[in-house]
Amino acid sequence: MVELGSCPLPFRDYDKVTIAHGGGGVLTQELIQKLFIPAFGDAAADATPTDAATLAVGAGRIAFTTDSYVVRPLFFPGGDIGQLSVHGTVNDLAMAGAQPLALSTAFVLEEGLEMGVLHRIATSMGAAATAAGVGLVTGDTKVVDAGLADGMYITTAGVGVIPDGVDLRPERVVPGDAVILSGTIGRHGTAVMSVREGLEFGTELVSDSAPLNGLVESMLSVCPDIHALRDLTRGGMAAALCEIAEIASVGVRYVEAAVPVPPEVDAACGFLGLDPIHVANEGRLVAFAPAEEAEALVVEMPQHELGADAVIIGEVTEENAGVVTARTALGTHRIVDQPLGEQLPRIC
Amino acid sequence: MVELGSCPLPFRDYDKVTIAHGGGGVLTQELIQKLFIPAFGDAAADATPTDAATLAVGAGRIAFTTDSYVVRPLFFPGGDIGQLSVHGTVNDLAMAGAQPLALSTAFVLEEGLEMGVLHRIATSMGAAATAAGVGLVTGDTKVVDAGLADGMYITTAGVGVIPDGVDLRPERVVPGDAVILSGTIGRHGTAVMSVREGLEFGTELVSDSAPLNGLVESMLSVCPDIHALRDLTRGGMAAALCEIAEIASVGVRYVEAAVPVPPEVDAACGFLGLDPIHVANEGRLVAFAPAEEAEALVVEMPQHELGADAVIIGEVTEENAGVVTARTALGTHRIVDQPLGEQLPRIC
Repeated sequence: MVELGSCPLPFRDYDKVTIAHGGGGVLTQELIQKLFIPAFGDAAADATPTDAATLAVGAGRIAFTTDSYVVRPLFFPGGDIGQLSVHGTVNDLAMAGAQPLALSTAFVLEEGLEMGVLHRIATSMGAAATAAGVGLVTGDTKVVDAGLADGMYITTAGVGVIPDGVDLRPERVVPGDAVILSGTIGRHGTAVMSVREGLEFGTELVSDSAPLNGLVESMLSVCPDIHALRDLTRGGMAAALCEIAEIASVGVRYVEAAVPVPPEVDAACGFLGLDPIHVANEGRLVAFAPAEEAEALVVEMPQHELGADAVIIGEVTEENAGVVTARTALGTHRIVDQPLGEQLPRIC
Repeated sequence: MVELGSCPLPFRDYDKVTIAHGGGGVLTQELIQKLFIPAFGDAAADATPTDAATLAVGAGRIAFTTDSYVVRPLFFPGGDIGQLSVHGTVNDLAMAGAQPLALSTAFVLEEGLEMGVLHRIATSMGAAATAAGVGLVTGDTKVVDAGLADGMYITTAGVGVIPDGVDLRPERVVPGDAVILSGTIGRHGTAVMSVREGLEFGTELVSDSAPLNGLVESMLSVCPDIHALRDLTRGGMAAALCEIAEIASVGVRYVEAAVPVPPEVDAACGFLGLDPIHVANEGRLVAFAPAEEAEALVVEMPQHELGADAVIIGEVTEENAGVVTARTALGTHRIVDQPLGEQLPRIC
């Protein structure tokens, strides 16, 4: 009989893991802050609150990140778990300002998985990595019993090189910064949900999954002093803005009408009872930059396909520290909350 | 309906993934060489045949590795999945001669997992990382539905710094090299198997799971020119020796009687119908070093707890390139094969 360790901290009365603990929202943060960090002890002294850690190597700096992908189904409009696992990790490096140096890939495969499916997904990973200009240099393969892994789970890790002079961190965000959104929101999450649930929304929804390192490189070329970047993955734009507001102890205020939501996303969200700002994306980012450089950025970004709809959506304020507010079409302001868990589970 | 990709290469007539494809034996190698590498295409141009890739960063070199852990059960005599996931990745870095700089940890958790279990395993990871002198700096948490993932799967990745002058690669192994084994074999795999199957072998079997970076550091201090190191994980000592023989195109010859097998491992293997040389370890290595430095190594290694039973077990030969042979107690020689798959599945 295995004796269980005591778990001294309250988890909003959760004594078991729930799906919401994996949603990238408040419960995921609680799990990290109240269970993992204290349990890791001294080993977590240098743990990062963002998706990529920065490591000093000789005179330079590298970024280091990892993500597991458990998206269901494995294939969705505009992508698949393999491509997603490359884009997500490349993007976490890009948010630290790093150009990807190498990726690793670890597979947990389900016994009985069709080799053709694995081949198709591996091919997709290779193509995605090549397009992002990075190699898949090391990896691992484990197989678990039939029924245990939904076909496959993939964990990629990445190492990237941070150019001299680039210093992207939530802590650098200050009142007065402009908040820039790189494009439309909500396509990845609604695309996966539509195929999973067999929903038809008239217009086909296609994931926005894409590697952001090229866009980030061009943004840094015109504005090396960008303060912070954040991709809009689990928890969507709302979670990204809330995270920055909290870590930097600033207010974030944006204009709802300025946020581009594709009509098909709007329709799908209406049907599903979701707010597009909570839906996961995999090819979108927000940038926090000095206001005087924001115009140059939104002129440069559309030169890149992934920045075609770049727009200034708001600003950073001293008041309302830690809080995100949105100005509605009626001119009122509402507080934007981070959801407890992901409203769309298993999206990445 | 999802259209499946074509899979042009023969997989010994396997059109589906089997448990053996995750065993670290010949079938795992086939999956990597015939499916992953071609499917990854250009992205795999710099892929490594060993467990850790070496990357140039500025003037220095770093090692980069990843492994998924799917051991069943989560707790076993002498360890648990958390500790194992730290040791395994630290050891892959150590086999490249690298001192660990940072680890990442990605969890796939099963909905309904007891928080107390997660807490106990996270605590174990923190303690293992601290003991190995490395931090857990970044990570990810995903949750999948109840019934999937056997409680949890953990994927750790690691980055390490390779000291100047250290160059450990299978390709450097040459005829005349001595083959040194760091200690007894077979304890990890038989310990996990004994608790999984509820077997009783009289004497309790305890896993050998341990971080090898300290031992490797002391070995390199007396012999910086060690040619290659390999830990004896999936597939055991046999797989490690076969891999080196094949990559370096050399023969490897060892003396069976020189390999220390604890009596309790011997008994368990007899009961299970296994050969100890095929059983996974997590705190053991083989070293290939110039013969004239081998004595200094086996004098130095016992200074470290994990090298207490270090012994020269054989040598590298020009003849029988790619083949491992063992001299039996009768004085005959037998060819040592790499198993098709792991005889003990889900051991790491």
